[in-house]
Parts: sequence; structure tokens; C-alpha cells
Amino acid sequence: MLVVMKTDATDAQIARVIEIIKAMGFEGRPMPGAQRTTVGLVGNDGRVDGSQIESLDGVAEIIHVSRPYKQVSREWRPENTLVEIGPGVVFGGTDIPIIAGPCSVENEKQIVLAAQQVKEAGANALRGGAFKPRSSPYSFQGLGKKGLELLALARKETGLPIVTEALDEEGAHLVAEYADCIQIGARNMQNYALLKTIGKLGRPVLLKRGMAATIVDLLMSAEYLLAEGNMQVILCERGIRSFDPSTRNLFDLTAIPLVQKLSHLPMVADPSHGTGLRDKVIPMGRAAIAAGADGLLVEMHPNPEQAMSDGGQSLYPDQLARLVREARTIATAIGRSISPSSGTATAANG
Amino acid sequence: MLVVMKTDATDAQIARVIEIIKAMGFEGRPMPGAQRTTVGLVGNDGRVDGSQIESLDGVAEIIHVSRPYKQVSREWRPENTLVEIGPGVVFGGTDIPIIAGPCSVENEKQIVLAAQQVKEAGANALRGGAFKPRSSPYSFQGLGKKGLELLALARKETGLPIVTEALDEEGAHLVAEYADCIQIGARNMQNYALLKTIGKLGRPVLLKRGMAATIVDLLMSAEYLLAEGNMQVILCERGIRSFDPSTRNLFDLTAIPLVQKLSHLPMVADPSHGTGLRDKVIPMGRAAIAAGADGLLVEMHPNPEQAMSDGGQSLYPDQLARLVREARTIATAIGRSISPSSGTATAANG
Amino acid sequence: MLVVMKTDATDAQIARVIEIIKAMGFEGRPMPGAQRTTVGLVGNDGRVDGSQIESLDGVAEIIHVSRPYKQVSREWRPENTLVEIGPGVVFGGTDIPIIAGPCSVENEKQIVLAAQQVKEAGANALRGGAFKPRSSPYSFQGLGKKGLELLALARKETGLPIVTEALDEEGAHLVAEYADCIQIGARNMQNYALLKTIGKLGRPVLLKRGMAATIVDLLMSAEYLLAEGNMQVILCERGIRSFDPSTRNLFDLTAIPLVQKLSHLPMVADPSHGTGLRDKVIPMGRAAIAAGADGLLVEMHPNPEQAMSDGGQSLYPDQLARLVREARTIATAIGRSISPSSGTATAANG
Amino acid sequence: MLVVMKTDATDAQIARVIEIIKAMGFEGRPMPGAQRTTVGLVGNDGRVDGSQIESLDGVAEIIHVSRPYKQVSREWRPENTLVEIGPGVVFGGTDIPIIAGPCSVENEKQIVLAAQQVKEAGANALRGGAFKPRSSPYSFQGLGKKGLELLALARKETGLPIVTEALDEEGAHLVAEYADCIQIGARNMQNYALLKTIGKLGRPVLLKRGMAATIVDLLMSAEYLLAEGNMQVILCERGIRSFDPSTRNLFDLTAIPLVQKLSHLPMVADPSHGTGLRDKVIPMGRAAIAAGADGLLVEMHPNPEQAMSDGGQSLYPDQLARLVREARTIATAIGRSISPSSGTATAANG
Repeated sequence: MLVVMKTDATDAQIARVIEIIKAMGFEGRPMPGAQRTTVGLVGNDGRVDGSQIESLDGVAEIIHVSRPYKQVSREWRPENTLVEIGPGVVFGGTDIPIIAGPCSVENEKQIVLAAQQVKEAGANALRGGAFKPRSSPYSFQGLGKKGLELLALARKETGLPIVTEALDEEGAHLVAEYADCIQIGARNMQNYALLKTIGKLGRPVLLKRGMAATIVDLLMSAEYLLAEGNMQVILCERGIRSFDPSTRNLFDLTAIPLVQKLSHLPMVADPSHGTGLRDKVIPMGRAAIAAGADGLLVEMHPNPEQAMSDGGQSLYPDQLARLVREARTIATAIGRSISPSSGTATAANG
Repeated sequence: MLVVMKTDATDAQIARVIEIIKAMGFEGRPMPGAQRTTVGLVGNDGRVDGSQIESLDGVAEIIHVSRPYKQVSREWRPENTLVEIGPGVVFGGTDIPIIAGPCSVENEKQIVLAAQQVKEAGANALRGGAFKPRSSPYSFQGLGKKGLELLALARKETGLPIVTEALDEEGAHLVAEYADCIQIGARNMQNYALLKTIGKLGRPVLLKRGMAATIVDLLMSAEYLLAEGNMQVILCERGIRSFDPSTRNLFDLTAIPLVQKLSHLPMVADPSHGTGLRDKVIPMGRAAIAAGADGLLVEMHPNPEQAMSDGGQSLYPDQLARLVREARTIATAIGRSISPSSGTATAANG
Repeated sequence: MLVVMKTDATDAQIARVIEIIKAMGFEGRPMPGAQRTTVGLVGNDGRVDGSQIESLDGVAEIIHVSRPYKQVSREWRPENTLVEIGPGVVFGGTDIPIIAGPCSVENEKQIVLAAQQVKEAGANALRGGAFKPRSSPYSFQGLGKKGLELLALARKETGLPIVTEALDEEGAHLVAEYADCIQIGARNMQNYALLKTIGKLGRPVLLKRGMAATIVDLLMSAEYLLAEGNMQVILCERGIRSFDPSTRNLFDLTAIPLVQKLSHLPMVADPSHGTGLRDKVIPMGRAAIAAGADGLLVEMHPNPEQAMSDGGQSLYPDQLARLVREARTIATAIGRSISPSSGTATAANG
Repeated sequence: MLVVMKTDATDAQIARVIEIIKAMGFEGRPMPGAQRTTVGLVGNDGRVDGSQIESLDGVAEIIHVSRPYKQVSREWRPENTLVEIGPGVVFGGTDIPIIAGPCSVENEKQIVLAAQQVKEAGANALRGGAFKPRSSPYSFQGLGKKGLELLALARKETGLPIVTEALDEEGAHLVAEYADCIQIGARNMQNYALLKTIGKLGRPVLLKRGMAATIVDLLMSAEYLLAEGNMQVILCERGIRSFDPSTRNLFDLTAIPLVQKLSHLPMVADPSHGTGLRDKVIPMGRAAIAAGADGLLVEMHPNPEQAMSDGGQSLYPDQLARLVREARTIATAIGRSISPSSGTATAANG
């Protein structure tokens, strides 16, 4: 339930609404907007009788949010939420940042070189897995903490903010220490324990859509993060399961405008996992921008043939540069722009 | 099996290859290319021993086409096939035509007005159903032959070529008399009897992907048309079945670059059926162009609220104009262009 | 709309209701039941004001059928429809017939031997394709009319009724001459022209569920047949498209009780196409019976390794005998029975 | 890689093989069989040169397991693995146990009554969630540790072993203290951190198939448990995502014989989640038994209308009794039997 205050409502009137909501056994969360303040009622409001609140001074109207998600919805917050993961790297505004890097952090040379290539190509943040969810227990599982340290080193060298995945509670705390944005992978989209843990860490989060998740499922999982008080959430389309083996996943680009209409959170796209095919990453990355994506997440490796994982879908460095150029032209065509190159001059010189 | 001739092969050498293939019980079809001629062997070549042909004069090499489709493949014909459905309305080249119009032809006033609006918006061809495949036998099934006559009238008024669907053998012959391009709908993609009938009619065909069809299934169905001697085939992505009820279908834009790599046939996209939601047609139409689509197929109605079918996914005339404008900018960004407005000035004045 | 008459309504009262419905521009179809007669209104009844009819003598109540299908629904006809395709071979009752035979009719020896093996195994009807819908235009397309003649010969030899597929209008008329039940394949489930043609032929029909068809889609397609006046329709689950390549299709057995609740038509299952794997046909055939299937459709070939199509999913003759035995035990366990062996002794001797 | 020893291989020869494998940097795990011992090589064996081992005394042959899973495979262990979760409640043998109970543990009265009804109906184990994975953060999340205590109480009252879900590391340790079998839910099937944790706990595990998981994905996730040394793993089909909204999930019963062929682990079925519809649970439970399921997992609630979760798919107590009766008849028909009623008389009297 949302309590929309009048434009001239006083602070005392707002406080009174929150007080009454508390007395009813719920939490009232004030959300100041450009024109007016709205107070959200957190908790299952099926039992709430809104009439008691509607009659309070300063209240304009009561909106019952009928959808199963609440804080992620546009009704709850009409303006786009901006999520900043590094200086100038902001998702949800006019600028469109591009996150790129290898599937896994493999060693110092590889990740530092990758970071430099990402930066040179004009992308804005570095991705790279330290903890890898692998379908086989016998596959390379990532370098763990050592991988995080190498990512931090790559950031120091280039100034690029870092996005990396956490798989469990202990790992999430570690990732939060090192990374600028914590990724929750597709396989963990409905790992609610992990969502609750990460929701409390106060770091920006990139939440990937699960392989069998509807748009509503994705928004419900994001709601777990927001319910813990973390609004800094980026959503990500990365392909869903389909009957056609032509591609690793079925890249559902319509999810972009769908999510953007239903939610205030930024929605990015991952054409690497979305297609699983290197030569489809560029056209589908362009298509994602044209569909309105608020960012791209792309796999690039200095040497894809020797990658320890996902080599077949990783771009070569010069292909990433081409994708950034083409994305820039497409963005301009729809009145947006790819974020300017990231990283401090100092770092670049250092 | 493909017999690639040397660049300096003589006509006599080519004729000899065809002769030998015929003696083996197959048909040899010569395909002159820019650099060299290739001779395709039509028929099931599982039993063919290529060594006999390989040793003939003028033969450069033998390529065994392992894929289940043959004449639709890039190996069979490396260059894009251009399909012209009206003066200057060509699919498969640099220019990207846009086909638009109502789901159904309803009456003279509606279809003529729609055609004028399509033309004014800058689109290049008129769509409209005279024979409608409806899931209910009690729903409006289209005006039939009367609808075709009205489409012809709309063409006369505007000069726009006409694309309309055929559902059965009798209807296909009628449609071939009136229309510039015969559409085969998603539900009939594997109606092989209809494919054979339409393949013989010698008209350009627009073949829509079935709701459960893989890319290979689509190409196999196109093979039926080519096997009847008709190369004028346009393929169309229009959304497939998925588990998410958010959209009517799941619009699989990766199908565009996939088909274009595997086949020489032009591949267009239908964002109206692909999403089923009017407000998603513009962003997904843009995305299709960015992904490399060779054309768009879009539903537009002069008065969507009063449409007899598919009103909810039909654009308003001014939305179509906006889509054409935005598609134009996106096309430019990737070095292509939306086809210039179609229709003769005379017709427009008439 | 359904007009339920009182139990003591007179013929004159019923005739009056039909007359009024006709005057309203629709057709009224009387359906005598065990207790009372119901009159169905055929046509789109969105505009009909039921009050005029409700006040007529003998009318008990008006039921508005809200579902998109009508004549196929249990509301329209509460009792199971029994479909008899040969003497004693009845679908929809307590007995459960088994239809078996090769994918394609290949030659006289093969189909007659197959029919004898089907009969010896204890199955009740013979299947075999004369017109084959093949995904490749270069694959064996069936023997056509010759195949129908061979099926008729096999029937003469064994007494088994024949089920075979029709692909187009011309073929449907031919099939109707020779076969006891016309099959409409999965790829043609939404070929509405074919449905209308076959609906008029007055023969029992076996309609297979399309690969991307929901239960409602299947019922809507059956409605096309019933709307042409043919009530002799058997529905068939044969697997749908899924993301798991382990099986050719995903066999959806829940469709059986779902359809049986919504419709009065018999619902059978095809574990051969449903799984695509010979060694899964027996367990899944048993499972279909346990789920309540009104019949089985199974591929069996005298010599699966040499089959011209679908050899990999065809049972060996002794496997069919085992399936019939095990199906019999399962049927008994749920209070039903497999139909007794079909075919007259005379025929067998003849 | 599997090292198959000769039938007369001595213990010393086996020990030597293990020693050599260890020297190569892997673990050799001896698996005594009825006829002969096999030694499995644990670890990524891509680099291993088998010839060194092949030449050792007592070695019959080397089998390279090409499938991505290993210890779960039938090649690794030809005999069925038996998983006993309570006295006489064994999965994987001829007897088929039935696990039943409410979705959530709600309070003492509810769970004790449910347990008594489960026992009276003839089922063999009690299910009930203490930790609930809910798509909404505002929904009832289970009673937690209190729920586990109530389950233990219900066990004390009835003697039924307990199956309940764990969602995270901390919860898994708690569940291991109280429950006889730890369930890993569909949403956590690829939560590899949880799989590793639970694999180490030494308790029987019931692993449910994820909504978008292929059969191979399911086996790979089970491999995580076995790789931690836990062989006591039961797999469970519970429905996957599909395009048809008629049912909550698509119940894939072919998964049962598929898994049983590929793996030695028992495979059970959950018709409650598999269909999501109370009136489909009995026919589909029967079908699962007929397909060869090694057990059933069914939701039953003393009072489904008042259930705090999943009431719509929960059986009434008398429906469970009917399901057990019908399952018994089906099991007999295929030469198996439903496990005899569980629970000690003492417990029942106590």
C-alpha cells in the first residue's frame, strides 16, 4: 500500500502517517519525490484497512499495489533509480555503461591485460569471476579470494570499477570487501538466502534473470533485495531456456522494455550468455541498445582460445572495441549515449 | 552435393558435369556466381560417389552439404538472394523495406485509408488478411476473395505492393492472382502440401516461423519452396512459444543473424506478433533493425480500438510514422537504410 | 449458449426454442441426453440476449459457455462421446483400444506382416502412413494412394480397422475412401482449411496435439471439426517441444486428465512420438494407461532396423505384445480393460 | 576414468592401483561389486594417461567415462543404490515408499495430526517445510527451528521418518540435526555452495529437479553431492516450465526411466508440484508408479482450505488414502509393491 501525501503536506503530517502505520504493526517508509512525498507500507498489507489513514491530514490518496512485487514497481517509485557503481559509471540514466571482461579471473597477467583492453575499447567497468558456479564439480571453480585480489589490482591499474559474482554467504562478504558491484548469477536468482544476505551488504547488486524465470519472478527476486533496504539493484537479461539448440540460451530482448515499464530499476543485457556465440554478440548487443537497455555486460578475453571457461562466447579485444563503437552509434540514434570511457587519468598513467 | 567449378571452367565443362549428374539419376542445377559457377545436385545424395565427378575437367572441388537443408544454404548460394515484391521494394539488399497494415481487410474504406496511412508513414508495402487463420471457428474468418479485391483497389490507390496470406490450395491460387507476395503463416509453416502448392506459383513468398519451429525447421520448410523452383522466398521471425505470459510470444531476434549466416534468403521480423503488445512494437522494431533484419512486418490500423482482430497489438498511424523514423536512424547507424517511400506519384494523386 | 430444457419438456417446446434461435440468426442444435434435452446455439453468441429464450415454456435454464470452445466442452455434453472406428473398437468407454503399426506403409509384405503381428500382439487397430509429412522435401513422402490400397489389403487379411493420416484436401477424400479413421498430424493441428475439409467427411478423426499447442489450442482445433457436424473425434497427446534434448518430445501425460475434465471427447496417447525412444515406449505407455488414457497409438515395425522412417522409436513385435500385456494389467488395476483382440476370425482366415 | 579389476584380482593388486592413481595426483576410490571390484578415479581425468594403469597386474580394463557426470552414472555403479531414510523406508529397491505431508509446518496440532493421517493412509514418511523458499519476501517463510522441533515431535508420535528442506548453510546443519532426509528444492538445484555443504553432512538427500534443468543438469547437480562422499541421494521429478498455463508445471514423467537408465540413484516423483492441481495428483501419482518411479512425494493437509501455502494442490487425508490404495494396485501390476506402512506400533501408541 502506498500513501500519497499532498504536495503541501508538512513533515509533521508525514511523521503522523508513519506513526499510525507503525501502530498497525507495519513499517512506513517515506519516499520524498520531486513533487510530493509518498509513504510506503512495508509488510503484507492484505489485512490493512486504508480508510483510517486516508482520513489523516495531508494525505492525498491511497494506492493499493495489487502486483505481487512492491518496492521494485514504478507505482512505488515513478522515477528511474540510478545505480552508480564507480565514478561516473551510472546505470538508469541517459548514459549507457558497458561492463566487459573475461568469464574467469585466471592470473594476474590475464586480468590486468583484460582490464587495460576493456578500458582501451571504451568500456566502463570490468567483469571477471573469482567464484564460478560450474555445472561440474570437477571443473575449474575460480581462484576465490586470490581472484578478488587480482581484480582489485586490475582496478588499481585502470580505475575501472569491478563487477563479480558471489555464490554463498561467506563469499558474499568477501566480494563486498573487494568489488564495486556484486553479481548474483542466473542459477542463484531464487536462492532467497543469498538474496537476503546480499541485500544487507549495502553494495550495488547486479541480479541476473534465471533460465526459467518469468519477468514477474525476476522482479520478485529483486524485491528480496529491496526489502532488505538495498535500492541499488541492476537487473540483467541473459537468455532463457528454449527448445532450439541453435543458441545456448534464448535472448529475450523484449524483457528490457517490459521491465522498464513495470519497474524503476535499470535493466541491462548480456548478449554473451544470451546467445553463447561470439559472432552473435555484436548484432545482439546492438539490438539490446536499440531496445532500450540501460547497459551491456559482455565477455571479452585477451586470448579466447586459451580461456579457462566460456572461450567460445568471449569477444576478442578488437571485437569489443567494435561493439562499443557500434553501440555508440545506435545509442545516439535513440537519443542516448554510451558512457564516456571510465578510469582515472592517474590510474591510466600509473 | 555442390560441384564448385574452376574460375576458368568452360561452358562445355559445366555441361559435362550436369550430364554426368543426370546419368547418375539426379538433376544438376548450374548456379553462376560472380567468380565461378557452382553446380548443385538436387535429390538425396547420400548414395552419390563424388569421386567420379571430382575427376572431371574444370571441377575445382566437391562440397558435401551435410546440413539437412540444401538450396536454402549459404554453401549452395553464397550471395544474398534479393526478393523484389514491387517496384523498388527489394528484400535482402542494403535497403530495408517496411510492410505495414491491418491484421484483416475489413471494408473498402478501412483498407484504402490504411494503405494511404502506410504510405504517408513512409512504409513500403501493404499487408492485410483476406483469409484469416483463427483459433475459433466462430471468429471472423476474413472477407476472402472480396478482401483480395479490396487489397488490389488499395494498391491501385497508393501503388503499394500487397502481402497477404493463403491458407489452402484454392486460396493460394486466388492470392497469387491478386497479391505481390504470398504469406504463409506460422500455423502452416509445416503444412507441406501448402508449401508445395505455393512453391509452384512463381510468386514471391513470405514464410513465417512456426511457434515451435527451430531455425533448422524454418530452413527445411523454406527448402520445400525452393525445391519447387521458387527462389523468391523471404523468411520471417514472429515470436515463438515461451513459459512467460508477459508477452503473446517470445520474440527471438537472434534468429535474424543466425538465419542470415546459414542462408542466403532475406530474413525479416514481425514485432507485432513477436510481442503482442502495441507499446513494445516500436522498441522491438528498432531492435530488429539493429540486429540486422532485412525488413519489418508491422500491424497498423486506422482505428485499432475498432479492429476486428489483433487491435491490441496494432499501431496507430502516427506510431507507424514514428517507427519508420526511428528505424531509419538505426539503419543509418549500421550502414543500411530504410527503403525510400514506395508507390507511384500518379497513384498517390489518383 | 446452452438452453437446458426441463426433464418433462415436450418435443413441441424444444422445436419452439430451435425456431426462436433461428429467428435470431443462429442455429439451434438439439442434444437429447439421458435425463433431458439441451439445445446448443451455434454461432458467436456474444450478441445474444438469452432472456427471450429463458422465458419460453419448457426451458429450465440458460448456460453461457464462457470458454472459447463450445461443442467440445463437458458443459455442452456431460457424457463421454464414444467413437467407434471398427466393430468393437470403441474409444471413450471402459475398454481401451490400442492402435499399432509402422510409421510408413512400405510395401505389401511389410504392411500385411505388420498387421498380423499387431493382431497377434493383441492390439485392436492398424496404423501406417501413406501420406507422410516429412521435414525434408527430399525424404520419402509415402506411397500415397498405393499405400492406402495396401492398408485396405491388410485390413482384409486381419479385420483390423485402419488409421492413417491425411495431409491435404485431395488426400483427405482419398483417405476417407479407404480408412476407418482419418489422422490429422501434429504439424497440421492448426491447418484450419484441412480441419474444415475433414470435418465434413463424416469419418472418425484422430486429431494430434501440435508441438506448441496448449490444451485450449487443441480443444479449439477439435471445435473446428465439431462445428462441421462431426462428433466422432479422438484427441491425442504425442509430446510437445521442450528444452531437454534427452527425448524427441516432452510427453505431457497430465494432458490426459486435463482434457477429459474439460471435454467429452476421448483422449489417447502416443508414447512413440511422445518419447522418440524405443525403450521408453513401454514404461510411458503403461503410465498413459495409469493416467487414464482412452487408448494408445504405438509404432511397431516387423523390422525396425530397416524401417524407412522412425525406426529408432518403433517397437519390435514382441515388445508390442509385452506392452499390450502390461497395459492390460495396469488397466485392470484402475477398473478398466484393454479392448479384446480385434478382427474377425473369418477375416483372419480369409 | 574407471579401472575395472579382474574377477580374481587380489587386495594387494587393488591397493597398488589406488597407490598409482594417488601418485598421479588423483584419488582412487575402490567400489567392490558382486563380481569384481572397480576403482574410480576422482578428479578431472582429461590429462590422465590410462596406459600406465592398464598394464598393472589384476587390471581387466580401463573405461573412460565420457559423460560429464561420473559417480552418479550406471557405468560407475551398475547396481541400484538403496537409500534408507528410516527403518524399512528404502528407496531404489522393489518397494516404493510414499512421502506425504503438508507444504509447511504450521503448528503442533496441524503437523501431528497430519503425521497421523499420513500414517493411517498407509504412507511411509512425513514431509513438511520448516524453511520455505517463497517467491515473495512478504510471504510466510516457515517456522524455522521451531518447525524442525515440531517435525521431530510428529516423528516421535508416529515413527515416521522426516523429509524437510534446507535453504542455506546454517539451516542445513540444523535440518541435519532433526531430519532423516534433507530436501534440496528445485530453486536451489544449481546452488552449488548448498550442494557442497549438504554433501558433507552425511545424511540422505532428496534433490529436486530445477524448473529449467535438463536430465543431464540434474545428474550433474547430484554429482556435486556424490563428489563430497555422499552416495545417499534420491532424485525427484517435480515438473518443469512450459508454455501451457493449464498446469503450474509440466510433469515430465519420462524423466523417470531416463534417469534410471543413466544413473544408479533412485528417482521419485512429486505429482503435487508436478501438476499444481489437487484433482490431477491421483491420476498422475498412479502414472508415475506405472512409469517406474521409486517413490512418491505428495502434499496432504488436514485442512487444505486453511493451509498457509499450496492449499490448492494439497490432497485431503482421504484422498491420500485413495492414492496409496491405487498406487498399490499399479505397483503390483508391474511386479513391485508400495512399502508397508511405516512407524513403530510403540510410537503409534506412545
